[in-house]
Amino acid sequence: MKKVASDLESYFDVAFPAEWDMPPALLESMKYSLDAGGKRLRPLLVVAACESLGGNRAAAIRVAAAVEMVHTYSLVHDDLPAMDDDDLRRGKPTNHKVFGEAMAILAGDGLLTHAFYVVASLAKEGLLPPDAAIAIVSDLAEYAGPRGMVGGQVADMEGEQGTTDFERLEYIHLHKTSDLIMFSLIAGGRTAGASAKQLEALRTFGKGVGLAFQIQDDILDLVGDESKLGKKTQSDVKMEKVTYPYFLGIDKSREEVRRLSEEAKSAVSGAGLESAEMLLAIADYLVERDR
Amino acid sequence: MKKVASDLESYFDVAFPAEWDMPPALLESMKYSLDAGGKRLRPLLVVAACESLGGNRAAAIRVAAAVEMVHTYSLVHDDLPAMDDDDLRRGKPTNHKVFGEAMAILAGDGLLTHAFYVVASLAKEGLLPPDAAIAIVSDLAEYAGPRGMVGGQVADMEGEQGTTDFERLEYIHLHKTSDLIMFSLIAGGRTAGASAKQLEALRTFGKGVGLAFQIQDDILDLVGDESKLGKKTQSDVKMEKVTYPYFLGIDKSREEVRRLSEEAKSAVSGAGLESAEMLLAIADYLVERDR
Repeated sequence: MKKVASDLESYFDVAFPAEWDMPPALLESMKYSLDAGGKRLRPLLVVAACESLGGNRAAAIRVAAAVEMVHTYSLVHDDLPAMDDDDLRRGKPTNHKVFGEAMAILAGDGLLTHAFYVVASLAKEGLLPPDAAIAIVSDLAEYAGPRGMVGGQVADMEGEQGTTDFERLEYIHLHKTSDLIMFSLIAGGRTAGASAKQLEALRTFGKGVGLAFQIQDDILDLVGDESKLGKKTQSDVKMEKVTYPYFLGIDKSREEVRRLSEEAKSAVSGAGLESAEMLLAIADYLVERDR
Repeated sequence: MKKVASDLESYFDVAFPAEWDMPPALLESMKYSLDAGGKRLRPLLVVAACESLGGNRAAAIRVAAAVEMVHTYSLVHDDLPAMDDDDLRRGKPTNHKVFGEAMAILAGDGLLTHAFYVVASLAKEGLLPPDAAIAIVSDLAEYAGPRGMVGGQVADMEGEQGTTDFERLEYIHLHKTSDLIMFSLIAGGRTAGASAKQLEALRTFGKGVGLAFQIQDDILDLVGDESKLGKKTQSDVKMEKVTYPYFLGIDKSREEVRRLSEEAKSAVSGAGLESAEMLLAIADYLVERDR
């Protein structure tokens, strides 16, 4: 994980061509949020998928940077006053708190747009054949766009207004979180020339792992609240946000995380990958993590 | 112009795959702004560049739709309260006035992302070779991104805070407006397999026409103000926004529009295009237009 994060952050330092004439404050605002850290889960998944097929790490790091730019833009926009109105993210002031709302909107727009430049650069610099690069562009636009992450954000925003049922919650989790995770695995596979069958296995793995990750987040939020409030059962906790534990209870939610993780692992175990080791380790880590 | 606008609007009706499961309000919000009309200048330029080389109109319409999605997202975000805070656009309530701020941010994000899906679809459906499609993706991300339109928006926003000099004004015009116009011409050329020399001629044409278009806009804004205020000279008009006429006066600005338009025309006249007729007519129209 540390090696991937460090390769990724080195790439961020050169991701914007030095000869480009950009307003310095824009670059600073984009870099502020890119460098804010986090688990770098999506980059790790891109690299793991690529290496499960013996692919080229340099191409994978570039796709990893693109997906992290998209993830970062989504957080910057999500934190805006008109959206979740958050002042802090990972213990640091959010982008609009430091640079103002207008700049945060534009920095998000810039990061999203530049992600596609980075993917296209793979073909332009000969790291990937053009048809593989265009497939990654198409997937990124689909999984991050109106059918994918943006659709999930809209459903989440509508859901917070009090109309959420379980089906809607699944839609939110699937699109707001899992879609970009699925993309990471498929795109990692594409950098290594995966077959259609291998891509399907990586996609199934991504869907399971993405949902497990989100449910575990719901559980950790709740457990965090419990210890903070000194209460033991979820029924005592006033929940403003609708979550998996809200519908299923905490024990059934934990069971669901384990089930999804096992399902994900078996999808890649039987897919004839060169080495599924890193993928399997990530699936275990996501279930066991406590933050 | 009418034929291009009508082909474009027909494509908008099928631009989002029917099987995609999206929140209906998101689709409605994106379509509201896409269907709001306007001059459709960028689509027209894509088609004109493509046809100057005898290219395929169906591919050009799709690139035209992508550039109009990017242009539309930039207007939706630009109108937001944190940016220009506009209530009306082309006589209709702005997106956030109808759908709320959060939805307007997400609809903009969705339109920007989907533009890349549309470009990628050209290669996936065999309308263009993958290397041409990836070049268009790269150009779109460059000209619309942090080095291009987004950078121009940032400079414009900073400029309104009172620090604009002539050099900064040129940066704003070049990037906020001309970049997407240059992209339209280059991308139209790419759909027709333009040579490097032809692409350079189209780029030069686009730069001249883009600047002329923006200066003419500045002039028309001012003339509008003058007739409204019943005043005759620009020095009498209190200008809150820094414009070309503010620095050069209205006569020199008019001269500059003509000079840029002629320069643009001569760039494509000598480039060995199959037919530059439509491009030349657009250059004339932009100088003569009165709205």
